[in-house]
Order: sequence, then structure tokens, then C-alpha cells
Amino acid sequence: MTTILINPFEVAPELPEDQFLAGWQRAAEYMRSQPGFVSTKLHRAVSPDAKFRFVNVAEWESPSAFQAAVTREEFRAMAGRGPANYPALYEVAVTIEPDSAPSGEEVNQ
Amino acid sequence: MTTILINPFEVAPELPEDQFLAGWQRAAEYMRSQPGFVSTKLHRAVSPDAKFRFVNVAEWESPSAFQAAVTREEFRAMAGRGPANYPALYEVAVTIEPDSAPSGEEVNQ
Repeated sequence: MTTILINPFEVAPELPEDQFLAGWQRAAEYMRSQPGFVSTKLHRAVSPDAKFRFVNVAEWESPSAFQAAVTREEFRAMAGRGPANYPALYEVAVTIEPDSAPSGEEVNQ
Repeated sequence: MTTILINPFEVAPELPEDQFLAGWQRAAEYMRSQPGFVSTKLHRAVSPDAKFRFVNVAEWESPSAFQAAVTREEFRAMAGRGPANYPALYEVAVTIEPDSAPSGEEVNQ
């Protein structure tokens, strides 16, 4: 079963978006080269004063694959230069759709 | 175009999961009854000491539909009793998949 990484970034409204994106892209390209990476989506807040201006949601083949990728020195040096962020691994606990009962199983949309 | 709500919840590791889930389910059932709701997925952290033990990722038909739902008194009373949380609306800024170049467009998986 795959695992989901969710990482909210605290990015000040004053920081130019391009500057954040350049750093994030470097990290994402590194991640893409690692075993077990599946995909990632960077979300941008509609309102720039959101507490978390960007949130990354990625899929990995397993928690251990993700942990191996982020503990490599190459990544730690990159991540240390970025804004405050709170990465953690998740599983889907509940899915609710308009015409179905709440379910503990993930439902494809 | 739909909009994405991401809401990280700061839930203490000591709080019984059932207690949080019961409150979240009530709020989610309310949301499901509102115009413009599409779907929602509640994510549970694999490690209970994650800063955000739960993260809700929902889809709405539009920002205004979501704003209308959360400004109703019925919802405000419910949300006021829950743990600290940071809801905001997002759009996908970048999608990266293993065998494609980075893209500003969402790619179905």
C-alpha cells in the first residue's frame, strides 16, 4: 500500500513565489530520482495570507522509501535552506462522497 | 474549476482518536449537505506525534460555495469546539510524476 506525504510550508506573503518555487522544484527533482517515489502535487493557497501558503501532497510506495530519501545528506542540505515546514506521512482514514456512506476505505474518484 | 480545501488539525497525541473522529464526522456530514460539496478525505498521520495528526483534503465546486458553508452559524458553532486547525483553499500549482516533465496542469493518475 502506498503512503501519503503531506507537507505544509509556512511561506511569508512577502517572499516572491518564484523564489519558493525554485527551491521546491530542486527538492522535487531530487525526490523524483529516488526509489519509491510515485508522484507529487504542490498546492498554492488561493489567498496569499494563508498560514500555509504552499502544501505539498505526494505519494510514495512505502514509508521506508520516503524515509530513506529524506535522510540522505544531499536532501538534508537542500531542505535546511527552505522555509518552516511540517512533513509527515499519512494514510486515508475516512472518505466521504456526496452519494455514498462514510467509508474507511479509499474510493477512487 | 473545483477548489481544494486543505485543513491540518493540531490534535494532541493523548486525545483518543475516536473523540476527534466523532467531531470531525459531524462537521463532515454537515459539509456533505451543503451546495457545492464534492468530496473529502481525512488523512491520519502514521506517527501519532506528527505536528498535524489529521489533515482533511476536500474538493468543492468553488471557493464561494465553501465560504458560504463555513460562514453559516450552524457550522461555526461546531467548528468552535474542535482542536486548532488551519483551513485554506488551494489550487494545484505543480504536478510531478515519474515519467513526465514538471507541469503546471493537473494530470490524472
